[in-house]
Amino acid sequence: MGGTNTAFAIVDSVGHILAKDSFPTATASAEVWADTLSRKISCMIADSAFEGEIEGVGIGAPCANSVTGCVEAATDLPWPSPIPLASMIESRLGIPTVIANDANATAIGEMTYGAAVGMRNFIVLTLGTGVGSGIVCDGHLLSGARGFAGELGHVTFPFASDRLCGCGRRGCLQTVAAAKGIRETARRLLEESDRESALRDIPESERSPLAIEQAARSGDPLAQEVYAFTGECLGKAAAEFAAFSDPEAIILFGGIARAGELLLKPMREAFVANSLHLYRDRVRFLCSALDDAEAAILGAASLPYMH
Amino acid sequence: MGGTNTAFAIVDSVGHILAKDSFPTATASAEVWADTLSRKISCMIADSAFEGEIEGVGIGAPCANSVTGCVEAATDLPWPSPIPLASMIESRLGIPTVIANDANATAIGEMTYGAAVGMRNFIVLTLGTGVGSGIVCDGHLLSGARGFAGELGHVTFPFASDRLCGCGRRGCLQTVAAAKGIRETARRLLEESDRESALRDIPESERSPLAIEQAARSGDPLAQEVYAFTGECLGKAAAEFAAFSDPEAIILFGGIARAGELLLKPMREAFVANSLHLYRDRVRFLCSALDDAEAAILGAASLPYMH
Repeated sequence: MGGTNTAFAIVDSVGHILAKDSFPTATASAEVWADTLSRKISCMIADSAFEGEIEGVGIGAPCANSVTGCVEAATDLPWPSPIPLASMIESRLGIPTVIANDANATAIGEMTYGAAVGMRNFIVLTLGTGVGSGIVCDGHLLSGARGFAGELGHVTFPFASDRLCGCGRRGCLQTVAAAKGIRETARRLLEESDRESALRDIPESERSPLAIEQAARSGDPLAQEVYAFTGECLGKAAAEFAAFSDPEAIILFGGIARAGELLLKPMREAFVANSLHLYRDRVRFLCSALDDAEAAILGAASLPYMH
Repeated sequence: MGGTNTAFAIVDSVGHILAKDSFPTATASAEVWADTLSRKISCMIADSAFEGEIEGVGIGAPCANSVTGCVEAATDLPWPSPIPLASMIESRLGIPTVIANDANATAIGEMTYGAAVGMRNFIVLTLGTGVGSGIVCDGHLLSGARGFAGELGHVTFPFASDRLCGCGRRGCLQTVAAAKGIRETARRLLEESDRESALRDIPESERSPLAIEQAARSGDPLAQEVYAFTGECLGKAAAEFAAFSDPEAIILFGGIARAGELLLKPMREAFVANSLHLYRDRVRFLCSALDDAEAAILGAASLPYMH
């Protein structure tokens, strides 16, 4: 469920999408949205061969709190929060329903269908508009006292101490590792010298992480430096995160993670240079194995397997 | 089990020590130690009314890894590591045996008998020779991929970036918040001015955290500043830790924690000033409720309840 669109699907236990549809989220009220979704899901089940075999419903949504089952303070949705999403769908469909925020759903998706199959200890960092995270430790997705475990995008670091975050604090990881941060790193590098770079030919408003990535792949040294810095910051951050949950892998997800080795190589090097010896050569750095187009659906579909 | 002494006891489910004894750890080999301990425990059980009712054995030991059941790389013990401590005792006594390092045993002890009874999300920081930690999230003590979760004494911070840690890195929390760090903070404050302080009358070798605490309680402003700085650092660290596991409380344990409000007050203030709004007024800061003399025994005794 996103601010614009609600996509839904029937997914089997190995991650095949058997049927899939969507509708605009902006209905008259959350109740109308729940009625619409429930009716459409019932029709999809009736149209398919799966009636009576649906084990659970999983919903990934912005600001979804798996502890309360509510969407809380979601500025992207057209209705007032909190919305008791889990119980609204569960009561309509009579099927156990679990909700989680997008990053946590992604972590469970990676464990169920993706890069973390067979792992019991890993961290997923979702690099997008912000930096989200899902922490799985000892096979369990961390929720915390009020469902706010794993806000690793808001852990602060010296390498970002001169950057103001939307949360009002300085130095948050997401001020360098999310889309806006990568744009800002490029802007600073371009400004502090007059080195030649293909990025100078791109208007600032169009200088997206993808455009910078493409320039880096084409051999532009300044664009490569943007990703080297971002990866280095992620590696330093990972060195601190390791001391918390002793993960076997840290998995990058989202549009920015498509930069692959451009990020992973400096990330590995910075991790080795900065981590405690206990973790130094023990953590793998991976990019998501979920297909981008299907990741939201698969993350949500994996949630019922979480318990 | 410490490097010098091995203390053992029969403890009931509410934390009463029903029988207690100890013997010197330094036996000829780990096998002789295990034989000795097992024989003494069997005698203690036979001498009491508890035969056949012992639910489990818990052992707190330095460098004990609860994932492998082994003591690993313990420089304080008289025998070579790894020592498969859990299986050595379990095979001799025929009672399920769990081992954990001291900080993790303390965390379970606090949850079972101490300040964290009824809590499912908290962090214990043990302030002593180093800074150890035990993280309980969603009712579960975090172990991690190889049993090294919760090495929070080795998370690095800007406030300690000029301090070298025994691990070879700079900026680890324990370089300010463990005994040696508190001594060093006092030394620096004394050196950087000629302010009057009762601490000047104490030879540097005798300027222990306890001596500094006593001077602070007697109204010595410089000694108070030592604890204010230490508490402020702990509060800043806690602000970062909260984003990981969303705890309802952070509990200080160990000799240094006896400073109580001298540490807790600046810690609370620094937490509020530095944490993400989600956590700001939601985390309690407490000192251990376990009696110091009994804490090691109670921590170990609580381990069988962990699973």
